[in-house]
Amino acid sequence: MPVITRADVEDVRFPTSLTRDGSDAMNADGDYSATYVVLRTDDEALSGFGLTFTLGRGNDLCVAAARQQVQTLIGRDVATIAADMGGLQRDLTADSQLRWLGPEKGVVHLSLAAVLNAAWDLVARAAGLPLWRLLADMTPEQLVDVADLRYLSDVLTRDEAIGMLRDKEAGKQERIAELATTGYPCYTTSPGWLGYSDEKLARLCREAVDDGFTHIKLKVGRDIAADRRRCGIAREILGPDRHLMIDANQVWDVGTAIEWVRGLADFDLLWIEEPTSPDDVLGHAAVRRAVAPIGVATGEHAHNRVMFKQFLQADAIDYLQLDTGRLASINEIVAVLLLAARFGVPVCPHAGGVGLCEMVQHVSVLDHVAVSGSRQGRVAEYVDHLHEHFTDPCVVKDAAYVLPSRPGYSTEMRAASVAEFRFPDGGYWSRA
Amino acid sequence: MPVITRADVEDVRFPTSLTRDGSDAMNADGDYSATYVVLRTDDEALSGFGLTFTLGRGNDLCVAAARQQVQTLIGRDVATIAADMGGLQRDLTADSQLRWLGPEKGVVHLSLAAVLNAAWDLVARAAGLPLWRLLADMTPEQLVDVADLRYLSDVLTRDEAIGMLRDKEAGKQERIAELATTGYPCYTTSPGWLGYSDEKLARLCREAVDDGFTHIKLKVGRDIAADRRRCGIAREILGPDRHLMIDANQVWDVGTAIEWVRGLADFDLLWIEEPTSPDDVLGHAAVRRAVAPIGVATGEHAHNRVMFKQFLQADAIDYLQLDTGRLASINEIVAVLLLAARFGVPVCPHAGGVGLCEMVQHVSVLDHVAVSGSRQGRVAEYVDHLHEHFTDPCVVKDAAYVLPSRPGYSTEMRAASVAEFRFPDGGYWSRA
Repeated sequence: MPVITRADVEDVRFPTSLTRDGSDAMNADGDYSATYVVLRTDDEALSGFGLTFTLGRGNDLCVAAARQQVQTLIGRDVATIAADMGGLQRDLTADSQLRWLGPEKGVVHLSLAAVLNAAWDLVARAAGLPLWRLLADMTPEQLVDVADLRYLSDVLTRDEAIGMLRDKEAGKQERIAELATTGYPCYTTSPGWLGYSDEKLARLCREAVDDGFTHIKLKVGRDIAADRRRCGIAREILGPDRHLMIDANQVWDVGTAIEWVRGLADFDLLWIEEPTSPDDVLGHAAVRRAVAPIGVATGEHAHNRVMFKQFLQADAIDYLQLDTGRLASINEIVAVLLLAARFGVPVCPHAGGVGLCEMVQHVSVLDHVAVSGSRQGRVAEYVDHLHEHFTDPCVVKDAAYVLPSRPGYSTEMRAASVAEFRFPDGGYWSRA
Repeated sequence: MPVITRADVEDVRFPTSLTRDGSDAMNADGDYSATYVVLRTDDEALSGFGLTFTLGRGNDLCVAAARQQVQTLIGRDVATIAADMGGLQRDLTADSQLRWLGPEKGVVHLSLAAVLNAAWDLVARAAGLPLWRLLADMTPEQLVDVADLRYLSDVLTRDEAIGMLRDKEAGKQERIAELATTGYPCYTTSPGWLGYSDEKLARLCREAVDDGFTHIKLKVGRDIAADRRRCGIAREILGPDRHLMIDANQVWDVGTAIEWVRGLADFDLLWIEEPTSPDDVLGHAAVRRAVAPIGVATGEHAHNRVMFKQFLQADAIDYLQLDTGRLASINEIVAVLLLAARFGVPVCPHAGGVGLCEMVQHVSVLDHVAVSGSRQGRVAEYVDHLHEHFTDPCVVKDAAYVLPSRPGYSTEMRAASVAEFRFPDGGYWSRA
């Protein structure tokens, strides 16, 4: 069986700040970036590719952290790793010195996600399966052994988790067959960046409707008059039956959030996303009580499963938006999917950035097939940026992710893209 | 007025893992380390020195982050910085690309603490005052302008904060005079590390009692039988009137925490510290309800003011243990002192590590003199390690911190210590 012989971690940055793609009330000028981990084995045909997403500056910190964390994988054989991915994640999380820098948050947790994402990609490729399929084929016991349930037993024990997965075994193959036909539904954030003109917003909303999207999200929070104008433009194009969501990217205190969202309530909003500090569980709960029936959504900055546990315990969210680059890969994601299913809250993962859509399709499919068993109220995010840099990019057709079919986690970047956008010595940055 | 001309950030590590100093149930082998920031000015006699504390591996990540963040200070004049320390902290926190790596948590927040701690040291030295005095002499408006109140207005507005500080203006000089006589009371953790033998524990407990300490803290959480034996040894030496606290360093799930602490209740414990994940506000609240009258304490890993706001809102803690290397320096610490006073919860800062005691004395004195106005139920941590590496080390006499009198924040390290323990090229590490 192949052995991991080398690990490369690259700092890849795309100059998205130039076009204001990704601009919102908190993040005016992000350069979408990846801490990109490549695991090589002594089998030339088998490698693993994983990443976490950042906004530019500081990507070097994640790269430096990942270079330390990945060392433990060198010399290990793929079969042994594959047999105990839960143990691998526990070992890497528990480093008694690095742990102080989190624990389980910030740079060392983002970098850990990149390393573990690469390991999961490797394991799925070794099995010759798309990652969602490798996981969906596991027994309930195997999948729960993968999940990081530490600190969760007050709401979810190991036995309860196994029981939940057993309950969904029936119908699994039917759900897979159904997804193969329909794909997994998604919504688009592409029209709604704050840096876009009203004309561009209107044009992109019309294109999204023409492409079959039934959900569109707008960035808000810089200027209430502008927000009302932009929501009006979007709502008119969407008509009364499609859904409009808004996203404030954490700019408000709790009181301001309540007041501002109420001021937009007549546009029939499905959810307000990140109304305040992503750490403020109780604040989200207060906003939710005050703005109902508008839902509250958050999660792209929720740094670990313990935060999600509390968002659920406190009845603080209507939609759970986990981030595949921020949680410690599939291990922590499966735990969060289980928590959400236990509390009956739909998971609508955060995506966009670079590579997040590619991962999210696997996670939402896994959720539907093996964990929640439902698509009710669920819609994954989709942003049409930077997919051309991947060898197996996600495909969206009729506003749905087409079921991934190639082995792995879909996050291998094109060698030419890495060579062009590696920071600071790639072609683009050398010329810039 | 002097201008900042240079910033050096050093990776300083002490090999404390060799002696098991600092060993607890989660951290078996920390090498107490500092990300050490030195700000030089064009006045040779004026520099600023600040640090954050880490456990060894990964200190390089904080160093790399601090080197980026500190750049914005180069070329700025000290008077302008001193006049708007609140603005400086907001600017540094808001970096629209680095923010993704937190926000306000993990490596980029620890490094920000080191940078701002150095800036506060510089400003206090420029004023010729110990930092606590510089802050205590501010008007309520000035001190609130320093405090980072973002995301706190649902429980504390700017006007309310000013009102609270005004209420404590009376008696300020008397409290300063009193502290000059008595010092600020502290407790000791030095006897209780998990890696120490029973004999060493007993000897150090006796020495602590002889030195006048009325509070001692033990590490627990690896083995309940050993914990009962060790608590018994300590309680016998302490007698019935002195206080015993225990610290689990996050090793338990909520249910285990409750069961374990109840199993130690007959040793008359003042508090259980870090019973579970430091992110689990609601979990701490559940533990608190279940183990009363034993108090719950946490905070050394609470990464920002929003977490403390929730610990207070949820009635989750009896003692608030902020960390001067984890919060974004005085700006965030003043906000947390205000929150704690508003909720009537005593602040007993975390210390130990390297340099934390030196900072904590300023914070506890400020709390007593200007914010809470009380020492009721308050006792700062003290650990007798590594003070010899500082030019103005804290002094503990009769179990109390002697009021700091020299200008600054007391965190200038001896040049010889930096040269010896700089990683990896200092004298010690070159030989090791």
